[in-house]
Amino acid sequence: MNYLLYYSPGAASMPVHWMMIEMGIPFDAHLVDIDAGNQRNPEYLRLNPSGRVPTLVVDGTPRHESAALLMLLAERHPEAALAPAPGSADRAAWLEFMVYLANTLLPTMRDWFYADIDGDPAGAEAVRALAQRRIDEACDRLNADLADGRDYLVGGKLSTADFLAVVVMRWTRNMPRPALGWPHLARYIRGLRALPSFIELNAREGLTEWRNQDD
Amino acid sequence: MNYLLYYSPGAASMPVHWMMIEMGIPFDAHLVDIDAGNQRNPEYLRLNPSGRVPTLVVDGTPRHESAALLMLLAERHPEAALAPAPGSADRAAWLEFMVYLANTLLPTMRDWFYADIDGDPAGAEAVRALAQRRIDEACDRLNADLADGRDYLVGGKLSTADFLAVVVMRWTRNMPRPALGWPHLARYIRGLRALPSFIELNAREGLTEWRNQDD
Repeated sequence: MNYLLYYSPGAASMPVHWMMIEMGIPFDAHLVDIDAGNQRNPEYLRLNPSGRVPTLVVDGTPRHESAALLMLLAERHPEAALAPAPGSADRAAWLEFMVYLANTLLPTMRDWFYADIDGDPAGAEAVRALAQRRIDEACDRLNADLADGRDYLVGGKLSTADFLAVVVMRWTRNMPRPALGWPHLARYIRGLRALPSFIELNAREGLTEWRNQDD
Repeated sequence: MNYLLYYSPGAASMPVHWMMIEMGIPFDAHLVDIDAGNQRNPEYLRLNPSGRVPTLVVDGTPRHESAALLMLLAERHPEAALAPAPGSADRAAWLEFMVYLANTLLPTMRDWFYADIDGDPAGAEAVRALAQRRIDEACDRLNADLADGRDYLVGGKLSTADFLAVVVMRWTRNMPRPALGWPHLARYIRGLRALPSFIELNAREGLTEWRNQDD
């Protein structure tokens, strides 16, 4: 199996990067400098016509969409056990969490950060206001799910849902209500940030905020 | 296996309902009258705290999120072959389409139809303007994907991605630019609407528009 990950530090590529580090599989990583606009270079647009990260080139074919890549990697590496096996009791809950995070939190985050780029800048304030409300609702929901003291979202063990959730929670760090302000979410986040794979991920991406030692 | 589907005609439950009819498996269906506000009844909220459809009760446990339910049903009924098998060449493309439809088109449709309910009505016009732009972009992309004359989104055969895509395209029927205005999308939609399972779906949900005989 041959993998080449195109990533940008702290972006939607981060959960995929994290998973590959956690699994300990060989892969190559290629930095896409978004501040320099390199996601719009013709050679990158050939790999990813939408000009976003991540792209994961799998055995020569470029693939996209963070949540889909996490699910694909879980299938290709069942020995890593980062998703409940098909047919197992926790499978339905895992699928539901993966889709919930992908279709509720990810697009809402795009609204928050890119309302003025994706749409008319004059309407950006209204789009961001709705995004903020939905992000708060999602944090309320996740905090309630975690109120039973669980360390992981699904099945009592680490899964792709945790990589996706924690990275999205990271994006709230400079918002009016950061996810660390919800008590059960905060405990959950701190537990996952203590993983050696998360520490290594931050080192490889050159990130020096929102680690356990930072707040 | 025991299934009970809570649905509302033409809603996000429709792709799941369609799939179960296509598979020919036994299930019970329960109408949730959204016009009467029954999705807010306490007994329904116990099954689905967000007050949305669908809910699919699977062997006694309520499950949610259309895209997740389609993926779960595909796994539980591999004999129906409505998803490429894990490890097959088309699997990655199928996962990517499922996530793309779930995280781009579904939330954008929610913005279009519910901007004034989910958020401040004063900002609804701006939210809907961005939604319209994104829906047009998604139709452009799907139309380009289908320009090679293919009848199905993935792997040359019917899959859950088609159920989800066609139902979402149905929701554009009264928008400024309905999906049928894109030539390759229109051919694709008409092909899928000709399926006996789609005709039966419309009959069971009592829907009498956006069938092949209607436009």
